[in-house]
Amino acid sequence: MSDRASQVQEKNDFEVTTLSNGESPAQRLSALLSADMAQVDSEIIARMQSDVPLIPKLAGYLISAGGKRIRPLLTLAATRLFDSETQRPYPLAAAVEFIHTATLLHDDVVDGSEERRGKAPANLVFGNQASVLVGDFLFSRAFQQMVGDGSLDVLRILSTASAVIAEGEVLQLSAQGNIDLTMDAYFKVIAAKTAALFEAACEIGPVITEQKASEIDALRRYGYHLGMAFQIADDVLDYNADRAKLGKAIGDDFREGKLTAPVILALQNASSEEKAFWKKTMQSLKQEEGDLARALDILNAHDSLNSGLAIAKDFANKAVQDLETCPDSALKTLMQELALYTVYRDA
Amino acid sequence: MSDRASQVQEKNDFEVTTLSNGESPAQRLSALLSADMAQVDSEIIARMQSDVPLIPKLAGYLISAGGKRIRPLLTLAATRLFDSETQRPYPLAAAVEFIHTATLLHDDVVDGSEERRGKAPANLVFGNQASVLVGDFLFSRAFQQMVGDGSLDVLRILSTASAVIAEGEVLQLSAQGNIDLTMDAYFKVIAAKTAALFEAACEIGPVITEQKASEIDALRRYGYHLGMAFQIADDVLDYNADRAKLGKAIGDDFREGKLTAPVILALQNASSEEKAFWKKTMQSLKQEEGDLARALDILNAHDSLNSGLAIAKDFANKAVQDLETCPDSALKTLMQELALYTVYRDA
Repeated sequence: MSDRASQVQEKNDFEVTTLSNGESPAQRLSALLSADMAQVDSEIIARMQSDVPLIPKLAGYLISAGGKRIRPLLTLAATRLFDSETQRPYPLAAAVEFIHTATLLHDDVVDGSEERRGKAPANLVFGNQASVLVGDFLFSRAFQQMVGDGSLDVLRILSTASAVIAEGEVLQLSAQGNIDLTMDAYFKVIAAKTAALFEAACEIGPVITEQKASEIDALRRYGYHLGMAFQIADDVLDYNADRAKLGKAIGDDFREGKLTAPVILALQNASSEEKAFWKKTMQSLKQEEGDLARALDILNAHDSLNSGLAIAKDFANKAVQDLETCPDSALKTLMQELALYTVYRDA
Repeated sequence: MSDRASQVQEKNDFEVTTLSNGESPAQRLSALLSADMAQVDSEIIARMQSDVPLIPKLAGYLISAGGKRIRPLLTLAATRLFDSETQRPYPLAAAVEFIHTATLLHDDVVDGSEERRGKAPANLVFGNQASVLVGDFLFSRAFQQMVGDGSLDVLRILSTASAVIAEGEVLQLSAQGNIDLTMDAYFKVIAAKTAALFEAACEIGPVITEQKASEIDALRRYGYHLGMAFQIADDVLDYNADRAKLGKAIGDDFREGKLTAPVILALQNASSEEKAFWKKTMQSLKQEEGDLARALDILNAHDSLNSGLAIAKDFANKAVQDLETCPDSALKTLMQELALYTVYRDA
């Protein structure tokens, strides 16, 4: 069993039983739902087509870029918990992935980041203009998919999530460089920009299979807690020096002045000298050679990465609890493991 | 009667009767539907609110920028043709305006243009990042409005229009600098990027008042033909030297290498020397002092602005015809005059 797996086992009541075979819960969930995922993939490919060649070219660049398709996978899983037959999740899972992809495209334009899943982001390859417009196309396609399904509940859930995501992104933009950002304000940002879509992706399952309100609520909360854990872990990973050793980019948030859990936590007990450092680098964005290394040193001195992971783990544990009342199944166990594992993934 | 009004009267079977009082048909339509428009305005203001202050600030900047709100006006008019009571068009007309505003916000980012309705565009005031994200917010809000109404037909019409608009914008981007663009290809671009939303805005009226298919089709076609006339006239205006004398910006399309009706028409009979000029300026975007003046001279030598307006007028006449089968009313007459006037507006 890997170190991480034993950490999970040690620090959680919930037992992770099958990490020993080397596959992550996300991979095992994909494997368990592989026939369904193949249908979703076909739907995605078919529906990103257009007579305008640049659209499938750009959309395909991003969609085929090795993404884990975790959100459509959640929609499938949340449906299959209750119904093993219905085909309704396929177009809706594709819609969820389209909304996510549109957000990525617009986010890349916004952040001017230099890496996305290890490839150059679409906006650097195809230009900002094309990225904005193809994002709009995918977003519209998502709504066409939902209209095709015909559920006003699903349309309500996903249009609300989309508005909340945009609000979260604007909130994040407004908070950029604000070194007085509190953890509560940070939670508000990530709840909107990330957890809202996880929440919606999961809620769709019990909605289209017509479960009772308590099941819908359970899956909604599971998605929310999973999304929070996922984003906090992601924000910690951005300062993970081990990742840098593997040749992956770190420090994106630092360079952009985007305050996230590790820095906010480190600021809570910062010396006046450290506070001046964060102010110079992240508020005024005056960054010099060696500043990122200095930032990592301060974060380590405050043990802020572990503190951040501990918070992520709390959210993951809540996600595990959220599913307790659902009927037991191999699928449910995997969904719970996925929540825990999300905190320990390394990419 | 103004020169333009007499031109309309002279060149069309349809008689424009009331231009003499100085008000445009759009203004008179707004006046006729002023109580309804006030409701739509309230809806727009209420629904662009958000806990994130930058959102209403940026949305308000654009929405209050003196726009004519022609699209929501069309939704109202197309509803009132058939039903004088229903309140259903209000949130939907607001949704149409939100989709239009989102498109403008993303278009400004894309084009980097320097003027929009005489004010600096939002992206120059608030930044590209905020413009993209607030556009996304308004787009999502539009869908929330439609979900609130609950008509899957309306959702289908507007999600399809949104996808088509995005396709049209990407198509325009792909065609940029292509001096071999045909009028047919140009029609395809503007049908998607402009006429699709006019079409949808009008189609909603007979749909929510449950008219028969022939009425729905008539209003849909009216919107399409009006949108085509509107965009072609707009593209001609961009080369109107009289407008430059009033201090308004012209030549945006020229500077961006965006081929539109006047240049495409002038290219059809271009000398090899003229063709080289268009190639240098609009394909290679190598533009020097005096090139715009030269472009205007060439367009005038070929009478391309008048040829463009004649094509716009053909579309406007078709829009007039489209409404012939609808019951007669002052409103219908105004909608027909609006179509004709669209070709002769000067801003």
